[in-house]
Amino acid sequence: MVHPFDPISDAELQLTSQLIKDATKGPEKPHFIQIDRLDPPKKDMIRYLEAERTGKPLPHISRMTYVYYYIGLDFYKALVNVTYGHIITNQKQPKGVIGPLIAEDVQEIEHLATTHPLVKAEIEKLKLPSHVRVVCDPWMNGTDSKEDRMLIQCYMYLANAAHPESNHYSLPLKFSPVFECRTKKFVRMDYLPGGVDETVTETQAWDEFPFVEYHPDLNGEAILPLKPLIVQQPEGPSFSVDGHKISWQGWEFFVIPTVREGFAIYDIHFKGRSVVYRLSLSEMTVPYGDPRAPFHRKQAFDLGDCGFGASGNSLALGCDCLGVIKYMDCRRVNTNGDSVLIPNTVCLHEQDGGLLYKHTNYRTNVPVIARRREFVVQTIATVANYEYMLNIIFDQAGEIRIHVRATGILSTMPLDKDVTVPWGTNVGPRVMAAYHQHMLSFRIDPAVDGYQNTVVFDDVIRMEKNTKLNPYNVGFVTERTVVEKPGYVEQSPFTNRSYKIINENKINPISKKPVAYKVVMPARQMLLADEDSYNNRRAQFATQQVWVTKYRDNELYAAGEFTNQSQTDTGLGVWARRDENVRNDDPVVWATLGFTHIPRVEDFPVMPVEAHEISLVPFGFFDKNPALSVPQSTQSFNKSQYFPESGAESSCCKSNL
Amino acid sequence: MVHPFDPISDAELQLTSQLIKDATKGPEKPHFIQIDRLDPPKKDMIRYLEAERTGKPLPHISRMTYVYYYIGLDFYKALVNVTYGHIITNQKQPKGVIGPLIAEDVQEIEHLATTHPLVKAEIEKLKLPSHVRVVCDPWMNGTDSKEDRMLIQCYMYLANAAHPESNHYSLPLKFSPVFECRTKKFVRMDYLPGGVDETVTETQAWDEFPFVEYHPDLNGEAILPLKPLIVQQPEGPSFSVDGHKISWQGWEFFVIPTVREGFAIYDIHFKGRSVVYRLSLSEMTVPYGDPRAPFHRKQAFDLGDCGFGASGNSLALGCDCLGVIKYMDCRRVNTNGDSVLIPNTVCLHEQDGGLLYKHTNYRTNVPVIARRREFVVQTIATVANYEYMLNIIFDQAGEIRIHVRATGILSTMPLDKDVTVPWGTNVGPRVMAAYHQHMLSFRIDPAVDGYQNTVVFDDVIRMEKNTKLNPYNVGFVTERTVVEKPGYVEQSPFTNRSYKIINENKINPISKKPVAYKVVMPARQMLLADEDSYNNRRAQFATQQVWVTKYRDNELYAAGEFTNQSQTDTGLGVWARRDENVRNDDPVVWATLGFTHIPRVEDFPVMPVEAHEISLVPFGFFDKNPALSVPQSTQSFNKSQYFPESGAESSCCKSNL
Repeated sequence: MVHPFDPISDAELQLTSQLIKDATKGPEKPHFIQIDRLDPPKKDMIRYLEAERTGKPLPHISRMTYVYYYIGLDFYKALVNVTYGHIITNQKQPKGVIGPLIAEDVQEIEHLATTHPLVKAEIEKLKLPSHVRVVCDPWMNGTDSKEDRMLIQCYMYLANAAHPESNHYSLPLKFSPVFECRTKKFVRMDYLPGGVDETVTETQAWDEFPFVEYHPDLNGEAILPLKPLIVQQPEGPSFSVDGHKISWQGWEFFVIPTVREGFAIYDIHFKGRSVVYRLSLSEMTVPYGDPRAPFHRKQAFDLGDCGFGASGNSLALGCDCLGVIKYMDCRRVNTNGDSVLIPNTVCLHEQDGGLLYKHTNYRTNVPVIARRREFVVQTIATVANYEYMLNIIFDQAGEIRIHVRATGILSTMPLDKDVTVPWGTNVGPRVMAAYHQHMLSFRIDPAVDGYQNTVVFDDVIRMEKNTKLNPYNVGFVTERTVVEKPGYVEQSPFTNRSYKIINENKINPISKKPVAYKVVMPARQMLLADEDSYNNRRAQFATQQVWVTKYRDNELYAAGEFTNQSQTDTGLGVWARRDENVRNDDPVVWATLGFTHIPRVEDFPVMPVEAHEISLVPFGFFDKNPALSVPQSTQSFNKSQYFPESGAESSCCKSNL
Repeated sequence: MVHPFDPISDAELQLTSQLIKDATKGPEKPHFIQIDRLDPPKKDMIRYLEAERTGKPLPHISRMTYVYYYIGLDFYKALVNVTYGHIITNQKQPKGVIGPLIAEDVQEIEHLATTHPLVKAEIEKLKLPSHVRVVCDPWMNGTDSKEDRMLIQCYMYLANAAHPESNHYSLPLKFSPVFECRTKKFVRMDYLPGGVDETVTETQAWDEFPFVEYHPDLNGEAILPLKPLIVQQPEGPSFSVDGHKISWQGWEFFVIPTVREGFAIYDIHFKGRSVVYRLSLSEMTVPYGDPRAPFHRKQAFDLGDCGFGASGNSLALGCDCLGVIKYMDCRRVNTNGDSVLIPNTVCLHEQDGGLLYKHTNYRTNVPVIARRREFVVQTIATVANYEYMLNIIFDQAGEIRIHVRATGILSTMPLDKDVTVPWGTNVGPRVMAAYHQHMLSFRIDPAVDGYQNTVVFDDVIRMEKNTKLNPYNVGFVTERTVVEKPGYVEQSPFTNRSYKIINENKINPISKKPVAYKVVMPARQMLLADEDSYNNRRAQFATQQVWVTKYRDNELYAAGEFTNQSQTDTGLGVWARRDENVRNDDPVVWATLGFTHIPRVEDFPVMPVEAHEISLVPFGFFDKNPALSVPQSTQSFNKSQYFPESGAESSCCKSNL
């Protein structure tokens, strides 16, 4: 039986595209961009989940899908009831609303960018030797003015002709054709600056210099010997899977791959109590700090412009994770309306997370010690040059960590000989990586012991000095502020400001305070693009770290539904300005995980991961450490070994557990 | 052959104490507190290491030790040349300088605290049933006035008489005897408040209520079944050990257990280039925010007051780490001058750190993928109630992570019925854990491509808006400030301030900038105790996050050499005020890793780890990613398995490496 949370099926996707094809009357066929299932209405789902939990008859919830498609230059969005097989709404979008990019279109442009006569003429001027080839990286256009056409900026590079894995990013060229994505028409040729201003030059014969390669066939590095480290789970994993529902160490939740977000996690319960209704990456924007045209338009919205699921890697056994691995797939539409399976875009597995707690009673030398087993839900998306690893990690103490790793290859710009620029790092000969930011918005739709929640923040402040109670001036206390209306909360690391989602209706019997989950996130520099810039106006979410809105169905994406070439944010920029109550109501928390990336030479030609985290931790949610039920860490369980030359040393685990 | 970095030997320790005994003329025997080897002079060591590297004759460096001891109430410090067997200096310390605590003394007080007639009389008043027993946690006195005696504040608790592992921290009593540590004399009885002010009451009969237990025998929890996850290294580890020198994946360094710091790491090289001369935890202070006497004096200095090595856990195979483990021991003196071995206080092993980098060429679907293998140097210290896990973690991309986990048991205060206080969290019935801070100072004595280094910091700032070069207001650049004199650098998270140790004499050929290592640390709330408090004056290091001093031998400890009941900081508070040049000289960086701990109910009765990190990453130190020599991550190497029910799914690692 299909669960309302289940991802879109092959049949549902095909029915959706068929209904749209059938409804299209004119001579032009629909050109599909994106289809996925629509989130079920939360109100209905709460009833459904409650019935499921109590064994009552399940209410009916229709399966719904959304579809984006073009007819000619007109962009449409339709909603389809795939349970009953009919279109609910089907609307041409206003001029200026531009749909996301889809792989088939981009590949066509990529091909054109090296074969179009005008580009070929430009390539001719390079007088390239036969051992190099030209490669194109197509980019979303970004925004610097009103533009109704969907444009693709083609950044051009050279690579070693003899090897398909040669790193073209090490050798950017100084011309960049622009194409119209729908018509595939050539729009113009941009020339790229190579110095400290916007001066450009005509294309010259290529002056040969070496590539910086990452592929082991090409990088010239001798492999450092490394001995295997194998994770064995001889008795199998500790989690079970029922459809898309996972049960592990007291946790229960649904993992649902989606084409836009990669995956979403629903109905998270721990030890029988609800924590989160829906957890997802809601948007990511990557604005660059190079002010020179056309680089000033480099601002990707990796979810809204492309789709994190659609860009998902097919994860491979033994390559991406260790141990016993469960995989889930993503399903997308192609431009013809066919269903395309991207296998294994989500992997689920356990890992060891070091120690979870330890205490040694120094009087008896008896330790109590538990290791932290973690359950990981992972997806890895390749957005052209960059890779993003998104891990949601659960532990046995009620913590949920949102762990992001950025890796892959820097998007590079050409440099003239002996030039350095103040907005970028030279990462190879005549190649520069501009400073940029990665701003990710995570949407946390909480259900802390129920659906009626409140967002608060606590500051830690000094007590008044030289008082009767504080004569030694050492005292400090916390000060709580309640978020009553939608909006944002400013960062305040020096008061140790911490954000909490509380349930004012449930008082912890021990602390005598409302039960809570804390949102832990370090203070970061937010969006650098000026308030008076498109980059800023398009991504309001990236200007503040913590946002609160009141829940409404279908408000899932922080920068709004359509981000490609958007002129303004239609997400938080709108929803967080509504004058309505969010206290003891149904608030949604949007947490911006942002980092400014000043590239290092060491980030090239492939970047060691840079990891960042947000975590959700119970804060007076339980009446004691919920991990006391974890088995003790013992040698009979873990089977470690002594270092060979130290075999004579003796040691014993004094715990007799 | 003994290496100058080697830890103190049994013979050296015994020779030291014997020389002191021999030199003691009066009737009173020396009462030993601490002996360890002295760091060799850096100037000599640089010559030594250079000779070692180039195969030249090694210069002679005498082995030296320091010794702290008491004769009666007089505190002495001596330096001993153990190579030639003579005392170099032997000085009675000024009145008011108080030595660290040593286990034998503390145990004696702990025993006295339940057997002294005056305490027994107080216990009598509790009219305890036979199933409970009284337990004492002795605390350093802290400082609230001038005090020449070394005092011990005995916090008293109840525990289950039937089990040695019963959690006494769940049941604090409301009286607290104070003893003089050297004479073991009873000083006074303090009575503890249980309400929102300092009102105290006479000891009453105990009104029974339940313990909150952590030990699996007692905690009443059913163990959640968990299947083994075993780390196998069938071909052994990838590191080698020669004495105390470790070689692993291009890294070379010495790991030296010390009685005060736990361990120090010396002469860190990566791929043949020097990075750090000496890396160590230099001090930790834990001030509490409860203003009520006597809690206002709760401020531990876990290194200076006790010693992190002396408090080290004997780590046990299969309990504290997975895989193939090498152990090292700590050696300390007892009060009689005998040598005491604390086995296995330091463990060294490899672990998997997830992915190190990945890039999937979307044109060919070929991934390049490497896992991050990590090398961990770990010590775990038990300082009465708390455990601290100190991990120094090396990876294959040149990164060094200082990873700290706090766990163990909260130090608790008694609460009257139905009371809550604004400076603490109720963590059980009538038991409160006061807000407090953990402030750790890490001493980084850098050697970035040589010993002549400079400390700088970079801010990321917006370019001027509406200019010819920045018409779209998106540009941003970095701004560098050079640290010329000793002092501190303020945090500035909103300008993404990053601290770097650079070598102005070595220019990276790619970036054209000086080679550098970046010190990555999130901005945190620093010491809350007011400037006008002893807590603050004693721990200047904890008021700022980044300090720079000019190197001098024997300046190792951030709050100064003697912290127990100190009235003022004799470390950074003095050294960072010297007016001298640190640019292109021999700077030392002191990084404060601080966190304000607002206890959660979930932190009791044993606390899930709270992890914090500082990392050192190469920043234009290499001419490309130094981890290209890491083998690719493949199934034949990693041997993962499919989740049982998903065996039908097929997947392949497209990489043919």
